[in-house]
Amino acid sequence: MTTASDTPALNIALLGGGTVGSQVARILTEDAASLTGRIGAELNLTGIFVRNPQATRDFQLPSEYYSDDVDEVMDGADIVVELIGGIEPARELILKAISQGANVVTGNKELLATHGNELYEAAAQAGVQLSFEASVAGAIPILRPLRDSLSGDKITRIMGIVNGTTNYILDQMDSTGASFNDALAEAQRLGYAEADPAADVEGQDAAAKVAILAHLAFHAPFTLDQVYTEGITDVSDLDHKSAAEAGYIIKLLAIAEQLEDPEGVVLRVHPTLLPREHPLASVRGAYNAVFVEAENVDELMFYGPGAGGSATASAVMGDVMSIAKRRLRGGPGRTHTARRELECLDIGESTTRYMVVVRAADASGVLAKVAGTFADHGVSIKSMNQTPDEASSDDEKTALLAFITHRAKESQLAQTLEATKGLDVVNEVLSVMRVEGK
Amino acid sequence: MTTASDTPALNIALLGGGTVGSQVARILTEDAASLTGRIGAELNLTGIFVRNPQATRDFQLPSEYYSDDVDEVMDGADIVVELIGGIEPARELILKAISQGANVVTGNKELLATHGNELYEAAAQAGVQLSFEASVAGAIPILRPLRDSLSGDKITRIMGIVNGTTNYILDQMDSTGASFNDALAEAQRLGYAEADPAADVEGQDAAAKVAILAHLAFHAPFTLDQVYTEGITDVSDLDHKSAAEAGYIIKLLAIAEQLEDPEGVVLRVHPTLLPREHPLASVRGAYNAVFVEAENVDELMFYGPGAGGSATASAVMGDVMSIAKRRLRGGPGRTHTARRELECLDIGESTTRYMVVVRAADASGVLAKVAGTFADHGVSIKSMNQTPDEASSDDEKTALLAFITHRAKESQLAQTLEATKGLDVVNEVLSVMRVEGK
Ligand SMILES: NC(=O)c1ccc[n+]([C@@H]2O[C@H](COP(=O)([O-])OP(=O)(O)OC[C@H]3O[C@@H](n4cnc5c(N)ncnc54)[C@H](OP(=O)(O)O)[C@@H]3O)[C@@H](O)[C@H]2O)c1
Ligand SMILES: NC(=O)c1ccc[n+]([C@@H]2O[C@H](COP(=O)([O-])OP(=O)(O)OC[C@H]3O[C@@H](n4cnc5c(N)ncnc54)[C@H](OP(=O)(O)O)[C@@H]3O)[C@@H](O)[C@H]2O)c1
Repeated sequence: MTTASDTPALNIALLGGGTVGSQVARILTEDAASLTGRIGAELNLTGIFVRNPQATRDFQLPSEYYSDDVDEVMDGADIVVELIGGIEPARELILKAISQGANVVTGNKELLATHGNELYEAAAQAGVQLSFEASVAGAIPILRPLRDSLSGDKITRIMGIVNGTTNYILDQMDSTGASFNDALAEAQRLGYAEADPAADVEGQDAAAKVAILAHLAFHAPFTLDQVYTEGITDVSDLDHKSAAEAGYIIKLLAIAEQLEDPEGVVLRVHPTLLPREHPLASVRGAYNAVFVEAENVDELMFYGPGAGGSATASAVMGDVMSIAKRRLRGGPGRTHTARRELECLDIGESTTRYMVVVRAADASGVLAKVAGTFADHGVSIKSMNQTPDEASSDDEKTALLAFITHRAKESQLAQTLEATKGLDVVNEVLSVMRVEGK
Repeated sequence: MTTASDTPALNIALLGGGTVGSQVARILTEDAASLTGRIGAELNLTGIFVRNPQATRDFQLPSEYYSDDVDEVMDGADIVVELIGGIEPARELILKAISQGANVVTGNKELLATHGNELYEAAAQAGVQLSFEASVAGAIPILRPLRDSLSGDKITRIMGIVNGTTNYILDQMDSTGASFNDALAEAQRLGYAEADPAADVEGQDAAAKVAILAHLAFHAPFTLDQVYTEGITDVSDLDHKSAAEAGYIIKLLAIAEQLEDPEGVVLRVHPTLLPREHPLASVRGAYNAVFVEAENVDELMFYGPGAGGSATASAVMGDVMSIAKRRLRGGPGRTHTARRELECLDIGESTTRYMVVVRAADASGVLAKVAGTFADHGVSIKSMNQTPDEASSDDEKTALLAFITHRAKESQLAQTLEATKGLDVVNEVLSVMRVEGK
């Protein structure tokens, strides 16, 4: 592990040797010659900090690489790669690396979405780089384009499919008609969902990612707890059927959008109807995609694998190589400190379209009553589709009415729903979903 | 045009004030405050070099901005933005800017694909930056991800829809059954195709872009004349019909791929069959997309508008801002000099799949004969679809046979076709197209 001749060398310490960490170790060792050829320096893996140094790894290096002594592993490191996950000890170790003057690469969305600012500021003060491309949408290069390529434009909205587990489940429900529980069980069987799927299906994973995306896009700090979050556990067969009949597909979207009046940002994660022709609609299975709207560029989409050891390791290595190149060229590091204050607004300020499905009396005049109630609250209807109701009986004839509205404020919609529920001709509001895309 | 107080300022000289140039001028002036807020420096547009300073512009600035005296415009510039297009005077002016120590941003694919190396080397020697994100796929941030985000991975292949005009025409042919000429006329009417569409429909524009993409992806210099280029002028109704029947769509793809044996790169632009489920297949109208295959990340796609004044100006501004940030931070610029020699191989070395449609006698034993000829030349058949032949007559009963092959070398296919044409049961080979995607 020492360097010959006069090729400069950078020491890389790896924290974590699991799914992603072991693939980073593989690339650093197996592709060493080619990486050195590209940057003119050796990337010297000095050690891997793990819980259990004796465990067998997906990619196995000689045993002297593995250690449970973090000081030994981080000693003299130029770049520390954190792939442990979770808050502690990851947070503490990143701060320690920064205080030692090391640059840091991490894929830890959970940590960044809760304690990001503390870390960005520590890195900025120490003049080291903190890079985290792998933390959002796995292998898709999205953070660098947001920060650099779009820095002369004004991003207005980001919509991402950033959780492969939920995308796979919704896909199965849509294409096979499976129930949520059956689709989840299938995803678990295939390894797309974890034994405890809560963080995925309840939207927390996507919420952490949208907080990080919003930070890069809007140059202001946001945290997980500012994100309005709704998971997919309540998405029903009726939701899918009503969406399909109107030409839409249901996706769990992570949305960050900038509003002008009042000025601020709304962060929201929820099941969303998208027109079938929308570029995000064709993102299948466990793939991820991030759709960006900006003033000049109009719309861009970035698509690729959202997870997986090798794919995520590719993103980690992109960060490692960028830091290495900068170190060798000289010049200060880049930091991600927030440059301004931008308020995080309540979802009530957000404007979008909606699908509302109600069970109502199958009689003349009903549509007029419901439409009138919508209009009274400033919500106008774009389309309506009536379908037979299986629960309809001779005693009480009912039908299902599925409305798609024009754009309206969340707060207006909430009032509209209250009033609709109070109508004597309406038995039940069965489904309410937000609709995005032109 | 002078700077107040102690905010640092960078002088930007604009060469060209046409479709893209006038949008860059708009952003630099209209968004000046917000750009300054983001980087802590003023971007000072010092002048715009045009042929005709009196002409009226899409976005009009006061007349003192416009000049036909390039020395006056470039005097004291920190960043020169070249948006004239073509080889001369663009080449000469970029070299002049470099020799004055200015950084350069350009969107000129034609120039880069022919004289790129001369410019990259001049920039490297002068220690200035030469950035060209807008030269490929307009507004899509693709060059920076290729160079930075994927620098720790090994790119094996790039497939791009990088010409909006041809994508629009093929889309029309596919969805409405229009002929090439009718679809071209419609594209011209809508402004998607120029009066002289040769560079687009004959594939030269895409060829220039793939040479630039290959340079970034494979770290070796390539030029336009090394690209095997076939346009879409010969794509027929029968091609579209046969493709559709087999579940494929025809796209003009620009492909750069690295081969191991013999070692080298093949660059090719040609109409290509893609499975309808491939992410590139759903890229519609004048949009562009670049699909990247790499060893660790598997596959990525970047999607967005391939042209248009504002969208392209967004990419130009991304480059301007990156250079500005680097200038303000200090530290040397980044250059794009080639780091190694990599041979550009003949397309005969390339391996792909093919669709071959023949008119053959409608008799028993014909399929066996054709399949036998394919097998003799090492080309194996994946699927076959027989359809009635409108030209069939009682005198001579014929049918159309559409074959999809497994992967084979271009050179093997050429021999197979020769032999097939010589078969007594085969009247004619009507269509031969390459097939990509899994
Ligand atoms: N997996 C993906 O596809 C993916 C995608 C994007 C981002 N990420 C992010 O990448 C990070 C790593 O994910 P992963 O899937 O590689 O996790 P993982 O497979 O669970 O690996 C975690 C590693 O950290 C070590 N570790 C855990 N706690 C430790 C402690 N207290 N002290 C020392 N070592 C400890 C473990 O050691 P032992 O092996 O000895 O137990 C293991 O090697 C996470 O932040 C995750 O969110 C993952
Ligand atoms: N248009 C797009 O969507 C797009 C997309 C990607 C990349 N690009 C690239 O961007 C570049 C500019 O394209 P464009 O569409 O903006 O071109 P354009 O509309 O034709 O504008 C060219 C500008 O250059 C000036 N010019 C031309 N020759 C000149 C000369 N000899 N001396 C001084 N000025 C001269 C013209 O001046 P006058 O106005 O006085 O005639 C005009 O302002 C090209 O390299 C193009 O390939 C364009």
